[in-house]
Amino acid sequence: MANEVKLLRSWSSPFALRIVWALKLKGVEFETIFEDLANKSSLLLQYNPVHKKIPVLVHNGKPVCESLVILEYIDETWNAAHPLLPKDPFGRAEARFWAKFSDDKLMPLIKKATIGQGEDKEEARVQTAENLKYVEELLKGKKFFGGETIGYLDLAFGWMAYLINVLEEVSGATLIKKEEFPLLSKWMENFYELPEFKESWPDRDRLITKFKNYG
Amino acid sequence: MANEVKLLRSWSSPFALRIVWALKLKGVEFETIFEDLANKSSLLLQYNPVHKKIPVLVHNGKPVCESLVILEYIDETWNAAHPLLPKDPFGRAEARFWAKFSDDKLMPLIKKATIGQGEDKEEARVQTAENLKYVEELLKGKKFFGGETIGYLDLAFGWMAYLINVLEEVSGATLIKKEEFPLLSKWMENFYELPEFKESWPDRDRLITKFKNYG
Repeated sequence: MANEVKLLRSWSSPFALRIVWALKLKGVEFETIFEDLANKSSLLLQYNPVHKKIPVLVHNGKPVCESLVILEYIDETWNAAHPLLPKDPFGRAEARFWAKFSDDKLMPLIKKATIGQGEDKEEARVQTAENLKYVEELLKGKKFFGGETIGYLDLAFGWMAYLINVLEEVSGATLIKKEEFPLLSKWMENFYELPEFKESWPDRDRLITKFKNYG
Repeated sequence: MANEVKLLRSWSSPFALRIVWALKLKGVEFETIFEDLANKSSLLLQYNPVHKKIPVLVHNGKPVCESLVILEYIDETWNAAHPLLPKDPFGRAEARFWAKFSDDKLMPLIKKATIGQGEDKEEARVQTAENLKYVEELLKGKKFFGGETIGYLDLAFGWMAYLINVLEEVSGATLIKKEEFPLLSKWMENFYELPEFKESWPDRDRLITKFKNYG
């Protein structure tokens, strides 16, 4: 069977970057299709009619949507190279729990604490700090969330490595002080410096412009 | 190793019922701990400090949180009896996609369309109908979402089988007409009548009182 892999993404989406990183780690060749989210292609509407969102992974003509679902699909389909999820059920459950926490709790909080409108910004900053403590805790005794190598949870949390300091610059808030979150700060550096991912980072100035015009 | 399984749940939570159903299907003995959500136990706060929510599955002293994560944990841990997720990666991705759709899109919409406050109720009803068409479509040529037997996605959608008609009664809205959604209506009946789950259904009058007092 032909192994035709396409990825519908945008230039800056952290959800789409998870897929770029996973495919890189697995050594899977793929074609990138950049979507203009202000003018979605008929391909995107056809492949993800429910949410009309990127990323979409199209593997031999079949679409898979939702970034965390795609990560599991990639891990199960190309299962020999670089396993992403741990082997044991409890470790897998933990990784899935914290990935969901990233998207449902941490990401909205950090957005609110930086580029959000309204008076609850200060409260969101306090809550962000509280929740980041859990993330710091996860890294105790480990280089990556996955242990010695990058795993599923590293990819899920990968947005922090390039977005947090952009959001800090745009908003003037400091969310992550090195002395308060030494392990997380080190992880962000390590993740950002990974040679495999070097080419994947969105242009920082363009991100700053994007978030300055946000809301 | 001892196999000690405890489930922290509430009397009515559809998320917790998923776990009750999965453990029943797998033939796993477990102890039930009913939580009063207005007065959460120290056990719940200890096991799920991040969200402080039920359900929590405690297996040999280790907590697993988030109902869809728990379902996967149960399927991987007791993998011999009654597999919940399909075997092939694409089928698994589809099941996970629709389970997420259930929780992130359909459930909030149906809540808004029935017991929600505000003027956008009518709009929510239109959107509910649109989104239920996808669900109807999934059942084409199948008895259950899992095929001939109940699978992960049936458990994820299980809340529809007992909650929708309660919400319809409380709100006076009709969300699911038999002639419009024949397959889904039949599935709701089949699921509700399953002998394995008979004892699990929350008391209907108590549910109606609960939702009448909602908001």
